[in-house]
Amino acid sequence: GGRFLRGLVSFGYAGKLYPVNPQESQILGLKTYSRVGDIPGPVDFATITVPARAVPEIVEECLTKGIKAVQILTAGFKEISEEGRKLEEQLTRTAAKGIRIIGPNCFGVYCPGGGLTILPGEDFPRESGTLALLCQSGGFANRVTRRASSLGVRFSKVISYGNACDVNECDLVEYLGEDPETRIITAYLEGVKDGRRFFKLLQRISQTKPVIIYKGGLTRSGARAVHSHTGSLGGEAAVWEAVFKQTAAIGVNNIDELLDAILAFHHLPSHRGRRVAVVGGGGGVSAAAADTCEKMGLSLPLFPAELQKKLLAMIPPVGSSARNPVDVGNPSPPPPMLRRVLEAVLTEGDIDTVIVDAVQMSVSISSMKNGDEQYGDVVRERARVPVDAKKKFGKPIVMVLPVEAMEADAAAVESEGARRHARDYYLGEGIPVFLTLERAARALVNLIGYYERRDAVASSGSNK
Amino acid sequence: GGRFLRGLVSFGYAGKLYPVNPQESQILGLKTYSRVGDIPGPVDFATITVPARAVPEIVEECLTKGIKAVQILTAGFKEISEEGRKLEEQLTRTAAKGIRIIGPNCFGVYCPGGGLTILPGEDFPRESGTLALLCQSGGFANRVTRRASSLGVRFSKVISYGNACDVNECDLVEYLGEDPETRIITAYLEGVKDGRRFFKLLQRISQTKPVIIYKGGLTRSGARAVHSHTGSLGGEAAVWEAVFKQTAAIGVNNIDELLDAILAFHHLPSHRGRRVAVVGGGGGVSAAAADTCEKMGLSLPLFPAELQKKLLAMIPPVGSSARNPVDVGNPSPPPPMLRRVLEAVLTEGDIDTVIVDAVQMSVSISSMKNGDEQYGDVVRERARVPVDAKKKFGKPIVMVLPVEAMEADAAAVESEGARRHARDYYLGEGIPVFLTLERAARALVNLIGYYERRDAVASSGSNK
Repeated sequence: GGRFLRGLVSFGYAGKLYPVNPQESQILGLKTYSRVGDIPGPVDFATITVPARAVPEIVEECLTKGIKAVQILTAGFKEISEEGRKLEEQLTRTAAKGIRIIGPNCFGVYCPGGGLTILPGEDFPRESGTLALLCQSGGFANRVTRRASSLGVRFSKVISYGNACDVNECDLVEYLGEDPETRIITAYLEGVKDGRRFFKLLQRISQTKPVIIYKGGLTRSGARAVHSHTGSLGGEAAVWEAVFKQTAAIGVNNIDELLDAILAFHHLPSHRGRRVAVVGGGGGVSAAAADTCEKMGLSLPLFPAELQKKLLAMIPPVGSSARNPVDVGNPSPPPPMLRRVLEAVLTEGDIDTVIVDAVQMSVSISSMKNGDEQYGDVVRERARVPVDAKKKFGKPIVMVLPVEAMEADAAAVESEGARRHARDYYLGEGIPVFLTLERAARALVNLIGYYERRDAVASSGSNK
Repeated sequence: GGRFLRGLVSFGYAGKLYPVNPQESQILGLKTYSRVGDIPGPVDFATITVPARAVPEIVEECLTKGIKAVQILTAGFKEISEEGRKLEEQLTRTAAKGIRIIGPNCFGVYCPGGGLTILPGEDFPRESGTLALLCQSGGFANRVTRRASSLGVRFSKVISYGNACDVNECDLVEYLGEDPETRIITAYLEGVKDGRRFFKLLQRISQTKPVIIYKGGLTRSGARAVHSHTGSLGGEAAVWEAVFKQTAAIGVNNIDELLDAILAFHHLPSHRGRRVAVVGGGGGVSAAAADTCEKMGLSLPLFPAELQKKLLAMIPPVGSSARNPVDVGNPSPPPPMLRRVLEAVLTEGDIDTVIVDAVQMSVSISSMKNGDEQYGDVVRERARVPVDAKKKFGKPIVMVLPVEAMEADAAAVESEGARRHARDYYLGEGIPVFLTLERAARALVNLIGYYERRDAVASSGSNK
């Protein structure tokens, strides 16, 4: 309770806070109240952190006080024992009398617009964004919010809802579907209470907003783990496959894929074309690149002969390729050459997206040799090329910036810092960045597949 | 030529070097010779970097001089034109007269034992190891060698062999199969000249040494790219699938998977058991962990009731799980608790491997708060727990150390430095480290699958 309150104050909650604690008269300089009923005036929302056995009574007091909603952070309900299950049933009954409950066994709600944050989220961004995340697991909510925030993504609402004794994934998806602040909905689900309602909601809401779902508990061991985590039933993998086929919702398989999909949906326009061009700087990379994209479901059209001829006049005669992938023959191509290549590909390539891979776009200060100050300028000029091309042509450009310097020494760590600065530069310019080409290709396929399925679901619906 | 020579000198080649150059009398303080024939005394090996048209004549001169082998770095042969193809056929004919050729269109050989390194490899480690890498692509050889070296892996030989006008993948795999210095063979292949011979070699050699293959050019676009890269034919994906099924060779799909497999084979003992325990520190992580492992082909046996009871007495009563995965309820568990949990799992878990995931094993100095110097000691004590457990029980332990602090600011970059130090600590103790649980599971499956297929191939062979 104390930690939560401190976090909320440090996050900068602007409304009135009433600590309830029968032992203390003051907490963090705020007057405390012995009971909820003692608080003067109306209260909108309560956060409950008392031990599990005391929770049902407190929620009843909140109901009596006229509080509309509470979140219960306390764990130790149906996920651990029969006694806990009974306590939780009491909560569900109280909720039915006219109070909404988030939790128990959760980290609560992060809503920068309302000044609310979850338990370990006092350092989360204060600005609102358009991404919503709902998940049973508080740890997962914390992890994804932290990582996405560090990639420049901002949230409308993050709701960790734990055991879902009252408010559940259906209520939340329905609410977020109508929430004008939310443009993209993401979810980590361990169990779904009302499968039929959820399916219908996904079908309807994913017509207007992408719903990206990471479903846990799809295997035997996974189902066992979600049961002991939030007391949910996992569900069948085959059922979920069908859900993703029959709605436009997007299924992802791990946190990295979820974050990559978030970046793709956040930065790229809606589009359906699978034709990509890859522009990179090294032969082995280029052949592997073609395989990777095609295996993932993208297509790399062979460039028209005219364009190939034009490219061949720009790139080195040996150790290069002008077919698609374009191999500019060197991970550090001269910026004017890279610019001409990108512009030619964007003009005549007959493609929907350009992926730039294996081109050095960052350099740490200490890795520049003596007297090579100009090199930094060259790298910065090179890094600008995709940004300028995006502005000039308006076609989606995607960057792959791999971690190449993997050592633990100061120089390698500084290189990683430089790489992250380059990443942030591109993200700031609306260009999504991925760690590997494989991840870039998968994110693109998740994006494109969504719009394809959305069309298909819409037209099958209109045929009925 | 000049760059290559400088690299070799700076790498520390200990034998005699004879630059051949008709224009200069001295290069890097070494006396030059106008022609190969002018060099006094015998020569073992030549590196050729003259323009493509001049190469065949130089190779003839090397043959006349009695040189046993050459490597040709020059590109511009069959990969770019009909004229190049003819030049390359000349090389093949010269080779048949009694000189072995590596290349053309390659970066050459890195052999720390012999003091040789590839073109951009003057900073490669001087110490020899047990990993061999053969690949057509020089860029790929450079990339993989650099990344594997930074993970503490050392090489016996790395051979980039480009267009393979003479020495090809069959010769190299056969040689490495017999090379006493080499324990693990890895390859990036764009094309295979003699599929039947290669298959037989894989079948035989992978009985004694793991052969890990990343095959490029398996898709239509990929095949096109390898053709323009090294003039090879890509081959059918189905054919390669059959090769991996019928030999014990291991097929991987990208550089990351190759590097992960290298770490698994480098550090883990030969074993066949798919039963794993996952020990981690957060609920959502734990359910996802079970799914990930099971999807990948590992099994997470439910722990015996006795062990579960024992674990429940060690871990927090709520927000945890004792079933497998073990969720210790906190990413920063007290070291003595983590030690007891790991020891109990290793003693009574009836499992083959333990994966430790989502436990904080590193902390950067600046992220420790004032007066929290002791925290560093706690983290170091926690980090030692898996190392001690590995020593005590001898069972394979695998670590997952994800990149959590993703920002570009100094503190986050310092955290990444701390993470890499922790990674190097485990690698130094023979414990492989992976960036995600998914990658750890895939590496384990690649390892275990190898030993399973090796047994199967051996017994089907003895039945014939």
